[in-house]
Amino acid sequence: MELFLKALRGEPVERFPVWLMRQAGRYMPQYRRLRQKAKDFLSFCADVKLASEVTLLPEKLLGVDALILFSDILVPLQPLGIKVHFETGKGPTLETPPVEKWMEFNPSEVEYVYETVKVVKGKSSLPLIGFAGAPFTLAAYVVEGKTSRDFKEILKLYYTDRGRFFQILEKLTDTVLKHLLYQIEAGADAVQLFDSWAYVMSPEIFKVYKPLLEKIHKGLKEKYPTVPVIYFFRGGHLFGLAKELPFEALSVDWTVELSEALDQFTGAVQGNLAPHALFADKETIKREAIKVLKTAASRRKSGYVFNLGHGLMPDMEPEKVKFLVDTVRNFKL
Amino acid sequence: MELFLKALRGEPVERFPVWLMRQAGRYMPQYRRLRQKAKDFLSFCADVKLASEVTLLPEKLLGVDALILFSDILVPLQPLGIKVHFETGKGPTLETPPVEKWMEFNPSEVEYVYETVKVVKGKSSLPLIGFAGAPFTLAAYVVEGKTSRDFKEILKLYYTDRGRFFQILEKLTDTVLKHLLYQIEAGADAVQLFDSWAYVMSPEIFKVYKPLLEKIHKGLKEKYPTVPVIYFFRGGHLFGLAKELPFEALSVDWTVELSEALDQFTGAVQGNLAPHALFADKETIKREAIKVLKTAASRRKSGYVFNLGHGLMPDMEPEKVKFLVDTVRNFKL
Repeated sequence: MELFLKALRGEPVERFPVWLMRQAGRYMPQYRRLRQKAKDFLSFCADVKLASEVTLLPEKLLGVDALILFSDILVPLQPLGIKVHFETGKGPTLETPPVEKWMEFNPSEVEYVYETVKVVKGKSSLPLIGFAGAPFTLAAYVVEGKTSRDFKEILKLYYTDRGRFFQILEKLTDTVLKHLLYQIEAGADAVQLFDSWAYVMSPEIFKVYKPLLEKIHKGLKEKYPTVPVIYFFRGGHLFGLAKELPFEALSVDWTVELSEALDQFTGAVQGNLAPHALFADKETIKREAIKVLKTAASRRKSGYVFNLGHGLMPDMEPEKVKFLVDTVRNFKL
Repeated sequence: MELFLKALRGEPVERFPVWLMRQAGRYMPQYRRLRQKAKDFLSFCADVKLASEVTLLPEKLLGVDALILFSDILVPLQPLGIKVHFETGKGPTLETPPVEKWMEFNPSEVEYVYETVKVVKGKSSLPLIGFAGAPFTLAAYVVEGKTSRDFKEILKLYYTDRGRFFQILEKLTDTVLKHLLYQIEAGADAVQLFDSWAYVMSPEIFKVYKPLLEKIHKGLKEKYPTVPVIYFFRGGHLFGLAKELPFEALSVDWTVELSEALDQFTGAVQGNLAPHALFADKETIKREAIKVLKTAASRRKSGYVFNLGHGLMPDMEPEKVKFLVDTVRNFKL
């Protein structure tokens, strides 16, 4: 149970732990069978029994060292008065009232998330990772109203109405902090912030955004000083700024040079294999995983967690995903 | 006439020159009027009279210091046997035969590009920039078959069939080099390589890709030693590797810290204002442009060309674009 948490704390470990972003996802037949029991994606997330079963799937099917709560980063936006829709095969769409009219985050409206944490904790001895979208990524969804290729609207807002840009980010910061606090209270052993769209930010924007990330970290630490907080961001150009953040771990994508991340960040590092490697044959998957593991091992004996640079994709083969996890578990330090 | 070329060579200039990517584009009513005269986008590019008129528009309408040939990065793929379609309002789609069946690049099939260069050179004393897509960006289009959000297929190919990945890149490298040579022969004063999708590359991929960029540069220099070659790439995480390239200029997007680019790259730097700033009011546009110009001026008295971090967008206001150009022209060194 402790391997993952020890690695995050930089304490001695016998091997590097492994979990994978979207490890319980559409690529798994077992996931797809459970998904059919709910009428839509948000009902699926809101069904404690189904969400906890999904969360638990990778324990037996993959043999990972940590579970991550099954939910969606858009879930905690709903109590604010933002309407979220998922259409099958498409990304989400959002209907957002003006920021002045947003409601206070009311945790009882997403109580099912915290219930799911409790149920999972009652059924598994693996560490459980709670999560939330990072404020910038949530703001990008809110402002665009949908997923986007270039997230033009959020960058436009930064230049056209800086006040509103920060008002939105600040309200989301408050929501994210609360949502994570409730997950930890319910039993989450670590939490991860997902900043999937960070890569569109200029260094200038990231600099003015950083205090909000620090505020979340501080708010979490004040109440739960021992719970590690992981910051996942895409966009290697931000690493030089992100490494100054107080997070216990940085989860990096494939645009980051792993050796540099390990050399320069004092906390734990997670990642950074390009998920695309999983489309290759097993020989290649093994070679690529070992390359990452050797880079980590050449720098550290702990403080590294194996993961991908982004989530698993629906068209990946479960057998290869399992093979990757086995490869990491068999790597001797 | 010489201001732009002097700045690229790092020779003394009285002010920083300015041109903008997609300066002759859909945001201009004059462009849209000309566009209506052609049945589709590729016919528009192939019509020497129309393409040269479009190329020339920004000289009088904006007062820029350089013109860029009006064409498309996908144009030189057609002689290889790749079928390119543009549907109005959508991105391009490509039908690509297996790389083994690609034909040799036959310049006579895109002779209209070189004719356009000649016509423009006969009508304007401004320097004219020829261009081509960089091999990775072209490969991304070829492999995806369309524009994409994440360019998954090209990264997948890197892991699943490295041989084919390089075969495609090498054929495209050859095509790009030839296409640029013919443009210079026709009169282009400088050329720019567009690597718009470079940002999906890991440092590892960029390192094995670099020799192909160097090959293009070498091929150009052997024949035209005095013609500057500009490399535009998106993805600030690659700057540390790109700065080692032999190009006369690097054109950087807003994910690069401009001061670092100016400090670290020995050649000229072009860019890097986020185009999104142009959606703001004039006061903001001026403030943002002056910030970029002051950063450049604090480091250099030449070797900087003002531009955006990416192209102008169709929903921008011509008057604001003109205002931006005026702001740069009025900035005293």
